[in-house]
Amino acid sequence: MAEEELRTGRIPRFDSSSAKETRTYIETLTKPPGSLGRLEEIAIELAGITKKPFPVVDPPGILVFAADHGIAAEGVSAFPQEITGQMAQNFLRGGASINVLARQIGAAFQLIDIGMAQDIQDPMLISRKIKTGTANFLTNDAMTRQETIKAVHTGFDEATIFIKENGLNSLILGEMGIANTTASSAVIAALGNLAPESVTGQGTGLSPDQVLHKQNVIRQAFKTHTFSTDDPIDVLSKVGGLEIAGMTGAMLAAATQRTPILIDGFISSTAAVAAAKLEPAITDFMFVGHHSTEPGHRVANEWLNKEPILHLGMRLGEGSGASLAYPILQSACAIVHEMATFRDLENY
Amino acid sequence: MAEEELRTGRIPRFDSSSAKETRTYIETLTKPPGSLGRLEEIAIELAGITKKPFPVVDPPGILVFAADHGIAAEGVSAFPQEITGQMAQNFLRGGASINVLARQIGAAFQLIDIGMAQDIQDPMLISRKIKTGTANFLTNDAMTRQETIKAVHTGFDEATIFIKENGLNSLILGEMGIANTTASSAVIAALGNLAPESVTGQGTGLSPDQVLHKQNVIRQAFKTHTFSTDDPIDVLSKVGGLEIAGMTGAMLAAATQRTPILIDGFISSTAAVAAAKLEPAITDFMFVGHHSTEPGHRVANEWLNKEPILHLGMRLGEGSGASLAYPILQSACAIVHEMATFRDLENY
Repeated sequence: MAEEELRTGRIPRFDSSSAKETRTYIETLTKPPGSLGRLEEIAIELAGITKKPFPVVDPPGILVFAADHGIAAEGVSAFPQEITGQMAQNFLRGGASINVLARQIGAAFQLIDIGMAQDIQDPMLISRKIKTGTANFLTNDAMTRQETIKAVHTGFDEATIFIKENGLNSLILGEMGIANTTASSAVIAALGNLAPESVTGQGTGLSPDQVLHKQNVIRQAFKTHTFSTDDPIDVLSKVGGLEIAGMTGAMLAAATQRTPILIDGFISSTAAVAAAKLEPAITDFMFVGHHSTEPGHRVANEWLNKEPILHLGMRLGEGSGASLAYPILQSACAIVHEMATFRDLENY
Repeated sequence: MAEEELRTGRIPRFDSSSAKETRTYIETLTKPPGSLGRLEEIAIELAGITKKPFPVVDPPGILVFAADHGIAAEGVSAFPQEITGQMAQNFLRGGASINVLARQIGAAFQLIDIGMAQDIQDPMLISRKIKTGTANFLTNDAMTRQETIKAVHTGFDEATIFIKENGLNSLILGEMGIANTTASSAVIAALGNLAPESVTGQGTGLSPDQVLHKQNVIRQAFKTHTFSTDDPIDVLSKVGGLEIAGMTGAMLAAATQRTPILIDGFISSTAAVAAAKLEPAITDFMFVGHHSTEPGHRVANEWLNKEPILHLGMRLGEGSGASLAYPILQSACAIVHEMATFRDLENY
């Protein structure tokens, strides 16, 4: 596929007319004006995204991209690289957090191997492996530019199929990949011209000393690379990850279909920033599910101009925070569909 | 019933042993330690409340107390007193926010008339009217001490029945009563020896001038009354409300049965503070569902030492914020029940 396809402007416009219609309708509902706060704003945003004054987010789907990271060799994670494959098997057997939360919200669930080191044979796994993990970005580019574009296209295609086959009305993005907070910190630092230490945190649970080491590794790596900071494909290629690029593509696909996107934590918001660098209008189609404790998440959300829905001190990834926020979107829709108006009240 | 029964110490102890067992078990689950943040803490608290290391909150029930307030005559609300009855009818017909949210979480729903001005004949309404609204506390005591105690007992009895008949594993408290933020502000100011203006807000949507008027009314009323600030029954009698006292009793009943209590907004937290003044141990059984924009809510939550689960800028009441938070409690339980352990992972 040609690189230009990444930027063809297939993102539709946020439909202000539907949003306005919903805003006006909400004013007629049997409650003090504005008293449902953010719930009202969410309903209005969903109307603009879906072009439906009475929006629907049900059924939701959770698409998880798994990949490995060469940078894991530098000891930047509290867990060894093998955990990526083990957790992928956990996802396939329904034992991970995200499986539990998926069942709770009745979400379709799909795991994509877009670049794990391990080969897993399982009929439930979609294998779209681009390579067996990125190269170690301390000394090499994580991926070639072509591989990065292929990962974005893979995410786009898989999300398109996933949404259509399951008739989804909302998409939650999740990921698994040991060392992917290191890659995300590097991507956000590079895209925002920020000092790596300002956007690098404890990941899966590093000690303060280990966090310093992680920050040093990124600082060292930045001596090797020169970034075109306006070109997210360049940045993703040099220090990103296959699952991050895949999520970027999946977000582009969802927005193209007017499917609301629920961003999870730091990795997910990094992919969102990359998507927004390609297509600025895509942020209109996004909600950030929760506020992760990773420092880079706050920076990414500020860049996206998004206020996370939940603040639960989580830092798990997998799509867990986004899944927990999903019922709030569902409630926002239900309020618009089901509440009585003051006119109804007069007729009681 | 004798007044002493209010303080007989029927609140069981938070079961630290179950809480500890849950904490230890959560450490074995397939996720980085602590990465589910508050969700883990909620599961641990639920274990201590229910005395079950694998706690359950399903099914939930929503108990809404409706009553009127004599102070409404002073123009302290954006809505006329008639709205209490109209909204009660809306609750009975399933058209209010709380009905929509109750359906979403599969909650049993019950409305209690504990003191509405209007008489509503409806088989779905439980009529336990103590009187047709409180007296205007600008010039009179809102209720007699005996009426207040009767309202607390009514709440206790109705919650006991509601929990048992529906086999509930969690209780959400809601309310309806025009001018009840004025009563709540007065109660919190009196119990905390605070300036009324520090805990008095816009309620259902007053203008800044109207808020000043509301604050003045409470300040004026405070010249009439002398409070025993350690005696919540005294404060509720003088400036409280029948639905507030009813919620206080309902919370005492829930804790007695080890049923987790989900506090909603300002009115609900005012009832919670009153309950905690009677039985300090009851706060161990409470969660505060959301952070209301009412300034008194923050003060009440600080007093209860509770961090609200959601921050959505809401100020509706009815139990709406607590109902929206319910799925978070449900997820916390599901995580403990359903996630795989690292030992499971080794056996894959």
